[in-house]
Amino acid sequence: MLKIRSLVSVLTLAGLATVSSAADWQALPDKAPAPSDNPTTAAKVELGRKLYHDPRLSSTGTVSCASCHNVMLGGEDNRPVAMGVNGQTGGRSAPTVWNSAFNEVQFWDGRAASLEEQAAGPVTNPIEMGMKSWDDVVARLKSIEGYQQLFNEAFGANSISKDNATKAIAAYERTLITPDSAYDKYVKGDKSALTAQQVSGMKQFEALGCSGCHSGPAFNGPGTFMKFPMMKNGYFEAKYHFSKDLGRYEATKDSADKHLWKVPTLRNIALTAPYFHNGAVKDLPTAVKVMGKLQLGKDLTRQEIDDIVAFLNALTGPFPKQPMPSLPPTPGKTFN
Amino acid sequence: MLKIRSLVSVLTLAGLATVSSAADWQALPDKAPAPSDNPTTAAKVELGRKLYHDPRLSSTGTVSCASCHNVMLGGEDNRPVAMGVNGQTGGRSAPTVWNSAFNEVQFWDGRAASLEEQAAGPVTNPIEMGMKSWDDVVARLKSIEGYQQLFNEAFGANSISKDNATKAIAAYERTLITPDSAYDKYVKGDKSALTAQQVSGMKQFEALGCSGCHSGPAFNGPGTFMKFPMMKNGYFEAKYHFSKDLGRYEATKDSADKHLWKVPTLRNIALTAPYFHNGAVKDLPTAVKVMGKLQLGKDLTRQEIDDIVAFLNALTGPFPKQPMPSLPPTPGKTFN
Repeated sequence: MLKIRSLVSVLTLAGLATVSSAADWQALPDKAPAPSDNPTTAAKVELGRKLYHDPRLSSTGTVSCASCHNVMLGGEDNRPVAMGVNGQTGGRSAPTVWNSAFNEVQFWDGRAASLEEQAAGPVTNPIEMGMKSWDDVVARLKSIEGYQQLFNEAFGANSISKDNATKAIAAYERTLITPDSAYDKYVKGDKSALTAQQVSGMKQFEALGCSGCHSGPAFNGPGTFMKFPMMKNGYFEAKYHFSKDLGRYEATKDSADKHLWKVPTLRNIALTAPYFHNGAVKDLPTAVKVMGKLQLGKDLTRQEIDDIVAFLNALTGPFPKQPMPSLPPTPGKTFN
Repeated sequence: MLKIRSLVSVLTLAGLATVSSAADWQALPDKAPAPSDNPTTAAKVELGRKLYHDPRLSSTGTVSCASCHNVMLGGEDNRPVAMGVNGQTGGRSAPTVWNSAFNEVQFWDGRAASLEEQAAGPVTNPIEMGMKSWDDVVARLKSIEGYQQLFNEAFGANSISKDNATKAIAAYERTLITPDSAYDKYVKGDKSALTAQQVSGMKQFEALGCSGCHSGPAFNGPGTFMKFPMMKNGYFEAKYHFSKDLGRYEATKDSADKHLWKVPTLRNIALTAPYFHNGAVKDLPTAVKVMGKLQLGKDLTRQEIDDIVAFLNALTGPFPKQPMPSLPPTPGKTFN
C-alpha cells in the first residue's frame, strides 16, 4: 500500500496524475482504522490517555506527549518548533495529533510506519522527552502500582513493556479524530453547513490544483510523500529557509528523498499555526499564498487566498469531549 | 483574622499554645469559601479551568498553571523545584493546588493574601511563565475571540482584565478540593474507613505534637506561619540545606520573619514528593522523620514513622472528576 502510494506521489511529481474530481470529496470515517495486532479497546484507550498525558515519561518530569501535541488546542503547540526537556528546541514543528490515525506514515519525514512506532520516538529523543532508554521508561512505569493494574486490564498480567505502552498510546490517538466538521456535514448532504465563500473556496481548492496532493478524507493523499518546495523561489527561500532541511532524506539518506515530506493533513489546519515543517510561516493566508507559489507556480489573488482559507476553516473540529485523566500516583516518593 | 492567626503562631512558637484535642479532628467542608468580591459561578469556573490549562499564558507557549500544579497528579509537579519557561528553575518546590482554597495565605512565604493575588504572580515571573507584563497577557487574551465570549459570560461585556482573569482562575481553584478522603469518611462516622494502623498513626500524630501546627480541616493551622527548622541540626542542614532560604523574610525583609514558612496543608501529602520548601527530601517516611527531629526535637521510631505515614495516606483524594477543557483557538495565526 505504501509503495503504491509512493508511486502515485512520483507520478504526481511528474505531472502525470489526474486532478481529483469532485467525486473525491470524502467525509472522515467515524472510526479510525486500527491494525490487526492492536485492536482498539476501552481499556487500552484509557491507559493510553493517561500515558499520553503523563509528564513522568520524560527525564525532567515536565514533558508529556500532550505538551507538544496538546489536545486542549489544535493537537500541537502553536510554536515554530517544539520545546522539549530543559527548554531544548529542535528543527521541526510538532505535527497535530488530531486525525494522525489517518496518516499513512508518521513524523514529517515519514520515518515511522505506524502510530505505535511513532509513539516510541520522542520519549527517548534527548531534546524531546529525554529518557535514557525505554528500559528506564518501563522500569518507571513498573514502579507505579496504578499502571501495573491498568496494563493488566488492557493487555493481561505482567504486561508493562515498550510495545504495550506504545500500543496503548496509539489506541488512544485513534480516538482523536474530528469527523463532524462543517466540511463533513456538507459532504454528507447538509448543504447549509458551508457558507457560499467556503463552497467557492472548496471549488478553487480543486480547480487550482491543491487537491492534487491534499485529497481524501484527511486531505493528506493520494500520495504519501511530496517534494516541497517544488519550485525554486529565492525570495521565499531567503525568508523561510524551507530547503535547509532535506526532509525524508535525513531519515533514509537516499538522494531521491531529498526535500520529500509527508503530505500533512489539512484537517484543523486553521488551528495549527505556525506552518510548514519548520514553522516559518505565522499565518494561514500566507501559508496558502506560499503553497500556491511554491507548489503550483501560481500567484494566488487575495480573493482566492481568502476563499481557500474560508474553506480550510471548515475542516476544523469539533473535538470529541473527553475526561481529564487522573494519573496513577507513586505515593510517598518521587522520580526527581 | 490573619493577625490573630499570626499571634497564635507566635504563641505556638513560644510553646504556649495547647495541643489540639481529639475534638479538633475536622472533615474538609464540601465547598471552599469564596471572598465576597468573587463569588463562585459556573461561568467563572469554566473560564478559569481553561485559563489554568492554557500555555499561551506563558512567553514560550509551553507553560500553563497546570504545568507545575498538575491536577492530573497531586496538584504539583513531583519535582524538587519547578521548571518554567526555557527550562529555567527556581529555588522552591511548587505547592499543591489541591485544597489551596483552604490556605490562609498563598506561596511558601505567604506573600499573597488570596488565590486571586497568587494567580497573578507566576504569569509574569521571568523564570516561571515569563510574560513581560499583564498588559501583554490581557492583549493576548483579547485577541482570542473565544476568550472574549467566555469573559462576557463570566463577568459581563468587555471584561478581559488581569483582575477578572485571576478571579476566574481562583474560582476554578476553589473547586479543586478533596473532601471525600478516607480520613473525612472516618471523621464523619464511618469507622471502617481507616485501617487500625491509620487510626494508630492518627493518635500518634496528635500525641507526638504534629497536630500542634497541622490541624483543622486542611491540616495547615491553627497558625498561618511557622518557623522551620525549629531546632538546629548540623546533620540535616548539611544534607538538605533547609536554612539557606530565609522564607518569609525574603518577602517582608522583617528579621522576625526569618525562616518562617506558611504551614502547608498535609492533604494529599502522599502525592506531593519531594518534600519541603526546597524539595530536598525524596520520600514521605524521611519527611516525617525530619519533621519529628527538626520541629519536635524527637527521634521518631520506625514504627511511629510508618504509622504516621499510613495516617497521612488517608488524607489523599479522591479528586473530583472534571472534563478536559477545549481552549479557545486563534484560527490561522500564532503568538510564537
